[in-house]
Amino acid sequence: MASGATDSRQRFIDVAIRLFIRHSFAGTSLQMIADEVGVTKAAVYHHFRTREDLLAAVVEPLVAQVRTIIEQAEAQRGRHARADHMLTGYADLVVRNRALMAVVAGDPGAIDMLRTHPDLRDLIERQIRLLADVEPGPGGLVKAAILLAGTAGAAGPVLVDLDDDTLRQQFVEAGRRLLGLRTPRRPR
Amino acid sequence: MASGATDSRQRFIDVAIRLFIRHSFAGTSLQMIADEVGVTKAAVYHHFRTREDLLAAVVEPLVAQVRTIIEQAEAQRGRHARADHMLTGYADLVVRNRALMAVVAGDPGAIDMLRTHPDLRDLIERQIRLLADVEPGPGGLVKAAILLAGTAGAAGPVLVDLDDDTLRQQFVEAGRRLLGLRTPRRPR
Repeated sequence: MASGATDSRQRFIDVAIRLFIRHSFAGTSLQMIADEVGVTKAAVYHHFRTREDLLAAVVEPLVAQVRTIIEQAEAQRGRHARADHMLTGYADLVVRNRALMAVVAGDPGAIDMLRTHPDLRDLIERQIRLLADVEPGPGGLVKAAILLAGTAGAAGPVLVDLDDDTLRQQFVEAGRRLLGLRTPRRPR
Repeated sequence: MASGATDSRQRFIDVAIRLFIRHSFAGTSLQMIADEVGVTKAAVYHHFRTREDLLAAVVEPLVAQVRTIIEQAEAQRGRHARADHMLTGYADLVVRNRALMAVVAGDPGAIDMLRTHPDLRDLIERQIRLLADVEPGPGGLVKAAILLAGTAGAAGPVLVDLDDDTLRQQFVEAGRRLLGLRTPRRPR
């Protein structure tokens, strides 16, 4: 693909993220994206046939990062180390994508569309398992679900005054306490 | 108001809740609600002039319940008792409105609209303060935000297999651990 085509594709993705955050997935049309970029709807169609294609392109980098974190976490020895790796990786991912995560995690239209993404369903189940395994039974499951939804949701407007480093550190501290994980000794 | 008018108003609210859950707030039009009920759009307009009016009517009973919980919590002696009252009241409210809470808490269109509701902003700030006061500084704030967003978000599809009583009990246990509250002694 020529670099110009890649650039304009990325430009649509960037504008789509802004509009999804402002109007939700269901409230954003390809026409609105075309208007915001200042092109015709046909120019958007050239890259994305549907809004669903565009949402898939928006979340693809996040999905790839989550997959890497899950695979690394699953390779750790012991369920506490696995949960801690999942927690710290997820906290970092959420902080690096604050506004988008708050949308993707909560938007019913986006969630509905993403639920049909077979990879993503599998990844969410593996994330929950990694975090829930520390405490077998419903208690572990509920804490894992609160952690995933709460961290993504808390990345939004309420905590907008906290800088990224503080937020990351506090997410990890809160997650460890919720799951009952000890703070690992720092390597010296 | 005649009982027939009250009934049809409530019928629109019930259908709106179902459609908001399925399509998000921004993805639900008054026309869709009219179609689902099987009436003309004019019949919906008779009760609700805009989609925003309808959303306000949907969340009004929730807002009233949250206000009561907050006022009772603020009347407790000591910040631990205040946080615990807020936590247990909120867990119960979320469980009694599982599907709707998952939507209201996460839908950007709904959140945007609700943010302009001056009462609700004030109530959310008071909720956060009640929960965050146990630990001054950013740590308490982040834990309160995770708890509010996580409990509402976790009420959705992931935990659909858990019955209401188990979910309520686990929400309270997780919240107490996250905030650092002791389980109160049972009255004998």
